[in-house]
Amino acid sequence: GFRDITPEQVLARDGMISRIREVYQRYGFVPLETPALEYVDVLGKYLPESDTPSGGIFAFRDEDDEWIALRYDLTAPLSRFVSMNLNDIPLPFRRYQVGPVYRMEKPGPGRFREFYQFDFDTVGTGSMLADAECCMIMCDTLESLGITTGQYIVRVNNRKVLNGVLESVARVTGQREIPPTVSLHILRSIDKLDRVGLNGVKGLLGKGRLDNSGDFMPGVGLEPAQIDVILGYLSVTAEKRTDVCNQLAELVKESVVGQEGVSELREIDHSLTIGDYGNDRVVIDPTVVRGLEYYTGPVFEAVLTFDVVDEKGVTRQFGSVFGGGRYDHLIERFTGQQILATGASIGVDRLLSALLTLGKIEVEPTTAKVLVTRLDKKLTEEYQKLAIELRSAGINTELYVGKSGIGKQFKYASQAGKVVAIVMGEDEMNKDEVSVKDLRLGELLSQEIGNDRKAWLEQQPAQFSVPRSDLARTVREVLTRYSIG
Amino acid sequence: GFRDITPEQVLARDGMISRIREVYQRYGFVPLETPALEYVDVLGKYLPESDTPSGGIFAFRDEDDEWIALRYDLTAPLSRFVSMNLNDIPLPFRRYQVGPVYRMEKPGPGRFREFYQFDFDTVGTGSMLADAECCMIMCDTLESLGITTGQYIVRVNNRKVLNGVLESVARVTGQREIPPTVSLHILRSIDKLDRVGLNGVKGLLGKGRLDNSGDFMPGVGLEPAQIDVILGYLSVTAEKRTDVCNQLAELVKESVVGQEGVSELREIDHSLTIGDYGNDRVVIDPTVVRGLEYYTGPVFEAVLTFDVVDEKGVTRQFGSVFGGGRYDHLIERFTGQQILATGASIGVDRLLSALLTLGKIEVEPTTAKVLVTRLDKKLTEEYQKLAIELRSAGINTELYVGKSGIGKQFKYASQAGKVVAIVMGEDEMNKDEVSVKDLRLGELLSQEIGNDRKAWLEQQPAQFSVPRSDLARTVREVLTRYSIG
Repeated sequence: GFRDITPEQVLARDGMISRIREVYQRYGFVPLETPALEYVDVLGKYLPESDTPSGGIFAFRDEDDEWIALRYDLTAPLSRFVSMNLNDIPLPFRRYQVGPVYRMEKPGPGRFREFYQFDFDTVGTGSMLADAECCMIMCDTLESLGITTGQYIVRVNNRKVLNGVLESVARVTGQREIPPTVSLHILRSIDKLDRVGLNGVKGLLGKGRLDNSGDFMPGVGLEPAQIDVILGYLSVTAEKRTDVCNQLAELVKESVVGQEGVSELREIDHSLTIGDYGNDRVVIDPTVVRGLEYYTGPVFEAVLTFDVVDEKGVTRQFGSVFGGGRYDHLIERFTGQQILATGASIGVDRLLSALLTLGKIEVEPTTAKVLVTRLDKKLTEEYQKLAIELRSAGINTELYVGKSGIGKQFKYASQAGKVVAIVMGEDEMNKDEVSVKDLRLGELLSQEIGNDRKAWLEQQPAQFSVPRSDLARTVREVLTRYSIG
Repeated sequence: GFRDITPEQVLARDGMISRIREVYQRYGFVPLETPALEYVDVLGKYLPESDTPSGGIFAFRDEDDEWIALRYDLTAPLSRFVSMNLNDIPLPFRRYQVGPVYRMEKPGPGRFREFYQFDFDTVGTGSMLADAECCMIMCDTLESLGITTGQYIVRVNNRKVLNGVLESVARVTGQREIPPTVSLHILRSIDKLDRVGLNGVKGLLGKGRLDNSGDFMPGVGLEPAQIDVILGYLSVTAEKRTDVCNQLAELVKESVVGQEGVSELREIDHSLTIGDYGNDRVVIDPTVVRGLEYYTGPVFEAVLTFDVVDEKGVTRQFGSVFGGGRYDHLIERFTGQQILATGASIGVDRLLSALLTLGKIEVEPTTAKVLVTRLDKKLTEEYQKLAIELRSAGINTELYVGKSGIGKQFKYASQAGKVVAIVMGEDEMNKDEVSVKDLRLGELLSQEIGNDRKAWLEQQPAQFSVPRSDLARTVREVLTRYSIG
């Protein structure tokens, strides 16, 4: 459940994070960092009234016997922060935060107890401009990472429209309303659409269905007429966002809250259109549910749509990497006072894995591509000078500080991902020369590259002597072969 | 004990961290990220054999009843990582890691239960080259942050020399050796030199002394001749590192381990001299003790030497901000196999506070200096276009998404640290113009600045209209007044 992140993973992730950060900053979000540990009695109104905080959370008592918990997301701490600092922070408060969150779950493949989220939220406004910006930022973020239009889609829906549909479901059989537990069961069934298909949802809404493993999943037990209302709603589709809105408006025309939801979607659509975020990037999709007991209005998610073949040879999609929505009642739980808010969160690990699959992130195992070897330990002083000289020239350089001989030093260099090794024996030193060894040339020649470039590369010696005064320039030339600057 | 880090603090800290990271990378260190939570039975051989992990550590049982703890430093997790991956990682393994560590202490002023460390370590070599590099990196790091030679000093010592002195202390009264608990008591007393002075240490080594609060601190109970040996050692001082080495060599000439320690110090001195790290940057200081039960050879610390006046008007020094040493037996506790290692750790929060005091870090409360206001909500579409245009020109820009009127929007802009507000009414829109308001001009004019510059600035209007097509260029000009690119 816990894991170490290797150097190349950290380098790749940090590269990704700083590109995402740039996008968030472009829209004026500022960083906030809340602690990983929070007092449960501050955070904790969402927890059941009991002596032990509920499962799924790492919680324990400190030496004063107070309950402390590791954060399980970044939104609850933000809400706690806002409620504690209402008089000091300017509203709307737009903050981003990146960091690990913790869930005490049974570890499993791809399931970790510590994982990274990167959130941005706008607190203190109910304006749909903020929600529209969420969608734009999702697009901008993915595109800044090299995921192009067509490789992803942002899907938007509105919880109020769903509530309007639930009103219709009640109305069609003359009920006054659908009880909350039944509503939840219905929404959960809709949320399974991706996995079970429309027929599956039909079963789940009715008498139940057998799932793939042969287990019987009990259904909600709705009447056929009620099920038809929901299936009709789920079948709403159109190329243009405005057309989807029109169809939804028709479906919920008798519901005040439903109409409000459609009107919010229209506002978002309008802003997106102004910003030139077309239907090829953001769609309104009635099947999006998300965060059942949490979101109050618009909900959105970014889904990667390209196929990948996983390590087992199975073609699949990455699915949702980015999701969020409006949560107008969450902060209220901390303050008593309603503070409107909307935002979204990136699943950092999943997005990184997608980028690595797409080859959109450079994978480098090291930060210093050059190793100054120590062929003759007596000359250590000189080797140290070579390393200092290269560093002064702006080239990250490692001086070999181990005890092994030159053979093992070369092996170390390859293992550590070095591109260039510097070698100097006593003879060379006396001639004021130094050898530069290109450690990746062989590997590069064995790859499929253009013939012209190959012919040129083949003429390059893998190791050659240069005057010591040419060292930095020569190393830089070799690094350039591999587009390392 | 827990705290939120505000936007300007995060921005300042992240800026500092990335400069430090550059230095570590220049020497070839690679990032590693271990989890915040570790199984105590993996980490935990250092813990007493008991059912409850010892105090000071946040530890608790997970749902499988296993003890889990939050890391209390970054070295123990590194040791655990190395022991688990000995066959896969190239040695010497040079890694850096930055992140929070946790101590369950009574919170107090400036004492937090979660604080940042930024470590670099070289694992798998006993070469003094690695220790010398630690000292160089400490210098390079502080200087890269604008702390100049003279504002800091790196102090180096060697635990083996201390052990050699303890042998002399035994010898002078004919004892075979000083028992370990007494040794520890002696070292602890020496470690108090900064606070109690040489006379204070003399008291602590003898019969005890009254501290400032009037409490009696029991002494080690050494004989006067023994105390003289230690005071003689503590008085060793010379301008040049080589002279200190010569004096120390004389003091421990009868001790094998002592001579070994001096010889290590000479190697470090030699490497530093080759690298041009003179006595004005790194000194050998016999009074440095550090990490009593932990370090085995060289120990080093970087101390800030300039005076600061704290919030209570008291002149003080920041003291040690960076410390480390060689720990050749720590990883052995995890592996059984000896793995030599050395490294150092920055107290990130304390260093940041020093940089802020020195004014070496720009303090900015925001990432987007420009706010596009919404004077007339009907024109929101146009405001959105202005914001998009500015962002496309590479200028981070926030669109006001709240509901307030223009007066409160300006107030919001100042509170949020904006430099420029964009305003456009219907009239201006019809004339294809837009207003640019410099929010900091008044503040800037009230500061002491050169007369030429002041005269020029006074001619600049705080708010003026420009053709809409000139927007980005104009905003950039105003930002340039404040050296913001």
